[in-house]
Amino acid sequence: MPTVKLQNIASTAPKKITKETVKESMQKVLEELDELQNLLYAEHKHSLLVVLQGMDASGKDGAIRDVFGQLNPLGVKVQPFKAPTELEADHDFLWRIHQHAPAKGMIQVFNRSHYEDVLVQRVHKWVDEKTIRRRMDAINDFEKLLVTHNNTQILKFYLHVSQEEQQKRLKERTEDPRKMWKYNEKDIAEAKLRKLYWKAYEDVFSHCGKIPWIIVPADQNWYKEWLIAKTVRDTLKSLKMKYPKLPAKK
Amino acid sequence: MPTVKLQNIASTAPKKITKETVKESMQKVLEELDELQNLLYAEHKHSLLVVLQGMDASGKDGAIRDVFGQLNPLGVKVQPFKAPTELEADHDFLWRIHQHAPAKGMIQVFNRSHYEDVLVQRVHKWVDEKTIRRRMDAINDFEKLLVTHNNTQILKFYLHVSQEEQQKRLKERTEDPRKMWKYNEKDIAEAKLRKLYWKAYEDVFSHCGKIPWIIVPADQNWYKEWLIAKTVRDTLKSLKMKYPKLPAKK
Repeated sequence: MPTVKLQNIASTAPKKITKETVKESMQKVLEELDELQNLLYAEHKHSLLVVLQGMDASGKDGAIRDVFGQLNPLGVKVQPFKAPTELEADHDFLWRIHQHAPAKGMIQVFNRSHYEDVLVQRVHKWVDEKTIRRRMDAINDFEKLLVTHNNTQILKFYLHVSQEEQQKRLKERTEDPRKMWKYNEKDIAEAKLRKLYWKAYEDVFSHCGKIPWIIVPADQNWYKEWLIAKTVRDTLKSLKMKYPKLPAKK
Repeated sequence: MPTVKLQNIASTAPKKITKETVKESMQKVLEELDELQNLLYAEHKHSLLVVLQGMDASGKDGAIRDVFGQLNPLGVKVQPFKAPTELEADHDFLWRIHQHAPAKGMIQVFNRSHYEDVLVQRVHKWVDEKTIRRRMDAINDFEKLLVTHNNTQILKFYLHVSQEEQQKRLKERTEDPRKMWKYNEKDIAEAKLRKLYWKAYEDVFSHCGKIPWIIVPADQNWYKEWLIAKTVRDTLKSLKMKYPKLPAKK
């Protein structure tokens, strides 16, 4: 994998793409997505795992609401991963993750994921580098298991937000009553570790890149959400799924 | 791994070992085991996974009762694996297994295990050989995960019973009212596939042998149970565990 340098990657939409065209396209994409999700559920052969990673205030929650929240909740599950519970910490780091692997026919969205164990834990040096490397190997084995043994498609999105936009959004959380519940003073300290996080992410992209990462410019929500929706649509479309036929009469 | 030939391996105790000496020794082994299990629980650093495999009537249930049933149930869990449920079949074959991986401080016993997916399914040709090979690779990755990322000791026992003894035990199930609940007419058909099962087991020993298999002569219950108890005792002993000290006064 060639090394990605996040500082060289735009966090905004390409200039030629306007909010207006995207809004129009988004309607169509979501309609197609709705139909494809129904087909995924009906055919019951494949499953889809969507991993959402990104720094605080990069817009993971919004993407879940505006893309996956538009689909039939019968076939979509969302699982956030926060600091492990006592029982979770008494197991290997993939134990709690594996439990939420998607069943056939389902879309499973991870709000943060197993990657936190090679990101936040690395940045804060809670574990040594040898362990980090071993965890990355274990992650690769784990993702291979889902792909090989349950027909799972894995889409890994990194929401790429600029420092300015992130600061703006974190500030909003101290001012807008509807956003205050998201305020966490730790986020301010974490944001200061941006360079270390970027380095850790870049390493993840290269060592856990066999299933490639999709870096999503995330300063504008309309572009971010459209890109995610479009990628999911294209992935499901590529599966060439078919509705099962009526069973033969007995 | 050198290929094991099950037909060349004794299913009875070595001649020099008598039932009397073993019975005497067993008392001591179980006492030590009881203490070591308490220590494992108290220290809360390691965990132990015991995999019990063997053909029908090879004595898995008896081993569970007479060895692990002697320990404090607070620290011992037993999980049988039968034909997968609908929900389990909608996931990769290790999904239901991983959920029962032992927490730190615990002994987890598997009555049958993930190995059924490369044994019964192979013998009956329910899956192709390529899938079997891939499953074996996935099993190796999975066991490595538990060892590397949760300090799990894995002991894999194959209970080796002769055709004669197996037939005798299956027949008992049709005659002894206390054993009839175990009777399953499918077992008779499965027993006829002994050669195919042995071949499948031999392949498992060699391809999934990085964590080695312990082949237990299982025609005599007293020997089988003593050997298992002794192996578990020796394994726990080798961990050099220590009781945690009293926390320092504040």
